[in-house]
Amino acid sequence: MSVAKVTEIIASSNKSFDDAIENGIERASQTLKNVSGAWVESQKVVVNDGKVTEYRVAMKVTFILKD
Amino acid sequence: MSVAKVTEIIASSNKSFDDAIENGIERASQTLKNVSGAWVESQKVVVNDGKVTEYRVAMKVTFILKD
Amino acid sequence: MSVAKVTEIIASSNKSFDDAIENGIERASQTLKNVSGAWVESQKVVVNDGKVTEYRVAMKVTFILKD
Amino acid sequence: MSVAKVTEIIASSNKSFDDAIENGIERASQTLKNVSGAWVESQKVVVNDGKVTEYRVAMKVTFILKD
Amino acid sequence: MSVAKVTEIIASSNKSFDDAIENGIERASQTLKNVSGAWVESQKVVVNDGKVTEYRVAMKVTFILKD
Amino acid sequence: MSVAKVTEIIASSNKSFDDAIENGIERASQTLKNVSGAWVESQKVVVNDGKVTEYRVAMKVTFILKD
Amino acid sequence: MSVAKVTEIIASSNKSFDDAIENGIERASQTLKNVSGAWVESQKVVVNDGKVTEYRVAMKVTFILKD
Amino acid sequence: MSVAKVTEIIASSNKSFDDAIENGIERASQTLKNVSGAWVESQKVVVNDGKVTEYRVAMKVTFILKD
Amino acid sequence: MSVAKVTEIIASSNKSFDDAIENGIERASQTLKNVSGAWVESQKVVVNDGKVTEYRVAMKVTFILKD
Amino acid sequence: MSVAKVTEIIASSNKSFDDAIENGIERASQTLKNVSGAWVESQKVVVNDGKVTEYRVAMKVTFILKD
Amino acid sequence: MSVAKVTEIIASSNKSFDDAIENGIERASQTLKNVSGAWVESQKVVVNDGKVTEYRVAMKVTFILKD
Amino acid sequence: MSVAKVTEIIASSNKSFDDAIENGIERASQTLKNVSGAWVESQKVVVNDGKVTEYRVAMKVTFILKD
Repeated sequence: MSVAKVTEIIASSNKSFDDAIENGIERASQTLKNVSGAWVESQKVVVNDGKVTEYRVAMKVTFILKD
Repeated sequence: MSVAKVTEIIASSNKSFDDAIENGIERASQTLKNVSGAWVESQKVVVNDGKVTEYRVAMKVTFILKD
Repeated sequence: MSVAKVTEIIASSNKSFDDAIENGIERASQTLKNVSGAWVESQKVVVNDGKVTEYRVAMKVTFILKD
Repeated sequence: MSVAKVTEIIASSNKSFDDAIENGIERASQTLKNVSGAWVESQKVVVNDGKVTEYRVAMKVTFILKD
Repeated sequence: MSVAKVTEIIASSNKSFDDAIENGIERASQTLKNVSGAWVESQKVVVNDGKVTEYRVAMKVTFILKD
Repeated sequence: MSVAKVTEIIASSNKSFDDAIENGIERASQTLKNVSGAWVESQKVVVNDGKVTEYRVAMKVTFILKD
Repeated sequence: MSVAKVTEIIASSNKSFDDAIENGIERASQTLKNVSGAWVESQKVVVNDGKVTEYRVAMKVTFILKD
Repeated sequence: MSVAKVTEIIASSNKSFDDAIENGIERASQTLKNVSGAWVESQKVVVNDGKVTEYRVAMKVTFILKD
Repeated sequence: MSVAKVTEIIASSNKSFDDAIENGIERASQTLKNVSGAWVESQKVVVNDGKVTEYRVAMKVTFILKD
Repeated sequence: MSVAKVTEIIASSNKSFDDAIENGIERASQTLKNVSGAWVESQKVVVNDGKVTEYRVAMKVTFILKD
Repeated sequence: MSVAKVTEIIASSNKSFDDAIENGIERASQTLKNVSGAWVESQKVVVNDGKVTEYRVAMKVTFILKD
Repeated sequence: MSVAKVTEIIASSNKSFDDAIENGIERASQTLKNVSGAWVESQKVVVNDGKVTEYRVAMKVTFILKD
């Protein structure tokens, strides 16, 4: 039976929340093998001069541990 | 006074979370009448080979019961 | 040391959740100075005739209080 | 051993929260057999011209499934 | 400086939630001195033959400990 | 698209929780325009000499911001 | 893209929590097609004469809706 | 109308979570009359040398107060 | 295997939260044997004339029950 | 019967959490009358070069509204 | 004074939840020293053809960091 | 756009919660670069002979990942 590990990251984008998630998955997959999914923990935006300049998503990324 | 029912579904899309929600509403409206709204319970992505392949949204859909 | 205030708004859009958030920040920045960010509390959609007609986001907006 | 089902409804009344719950139980019992109880999930009021015009209760209704 | 104790009870009534709370306070005050207040944890109803027969409130009762 | 503001108040009554909510809405409507509704955050009672002397409701009141 | 439905049941057993879950899945599968899984919401025991006589599990069961 | 009290205990076992719950009910029933049930708050294991040596369950035990 | 009891208290101090916790442990240990620890549930301050006059901590105190 | 308002602030200090709370109360009392108390929502520290440089407390401040 | 690290894993078994936890501890102890315990975050089952085929436990594993 | 990682630790001190947090940040900074902050998850004390002997803080530490 498999065991998976869960790691929490905060990814960002200046375009959208969906884009921030894709950035996070891409970065995580550079160092982690067998990334299987992620679920959103929280969503935040950074604001400057009345405009949204950054979308931030805290997400828990799951990857399968090989024996 | 009206009574509404709440049903929980998990809808998916390979494009975005917003699209997953629209898919869910469309599917729910095929079998349910008077769907009035839905709120997001949780958001998850499925990953293959370092890429997001599926956006999944758990949502509670509300529809008004006719007497 | 600074003190920031947190105010809760519910912003909407007929396009997407991200657009609803931008509408909310824009409206808040009309009356509040030094808006620094916001985090999403909840996300809801309004449905008419089986279609999503409105995206609603409850968000907590943070702004720095000047002495 | 028994299995019970849980269904979520939103009931309303223009009198009180307790009355909204009774309306909900009455409506649920029209279509469901063996309703055994319900617990309150959330309570909301609708306001018009500074007056409460509607009490709304989201509740989880439990009913025993016959084999 | 004072220290208060918190005890959790589940009180019931066949009239209303408010009445159930008053029953609970009355019963708690028979055995506890210096009861100062209580807050509602959850609210449940018991149903028989499609009618609400019992209102149940889980509540945390606070009382001040004398030195 | 509209933007609504959410403000949190704690209203009280010596009669009932429902009455406390009505007091809160009435008071909020004295200073706020376009109050559309409120949802209950928490419910507490104050006790003196074994009797409930005050019903307190923490509630989030929503009002629509005019452009 | 698929849409799944989530239904909540309370299953019981006089042996163990695991057995209660299996009873619940078995009962759900009698009426629902494509049950894919379930997650535990809460766990409760009923006690008589100082002994556990019933294990109860509230669980959310997921099943895939066919188009 | 009855009033029940709720007391929180942490019970343990070196066999299983179910066994820990039975130990807790048995111990509670030595000092409390009319124990009617309990629900699980949290579940923890203690580990030594890579092996689970203890199952711990925090549980809220309910018992009916006699007038 | 041991069974521990959990009791909830609200302790206060006019100095600090840490001091309030120590007051609470000291008071609890006057009447309870084998107090092993406590965890913080919530933290509140009382204010008079713009100054903090009281630090209050709601805490769950654990003590081991002897057979 | 009184009505109180709740406002959320984020206060900071480079000394301690308690000091951050006092700064927040002091700042709130400059603009708000009848501040009666506050409870802690969350606690965060900012770190530079391995050292804590700022203690931040999100807190809900309560003040009584005069008729 | 010691510092411990917390890592989150999802362990599985085709026998029971307890067995899934033991598998998780065993796997974690292969790569981590001084594992002291774990607490259960959530419990899920996978179902095929109306039968539970897999018990999954999300758990937070604690291990002491050596200086 | 940056990606940050979140790691959870439990730090302790025999002086105070603030000191426990500083110990935790110091230990984390020995092995992690670019630690930017941390937020408190939970606070616990260990008690011996009626005295607080240890302050424990579970905290989520954030550090920026370099590309």
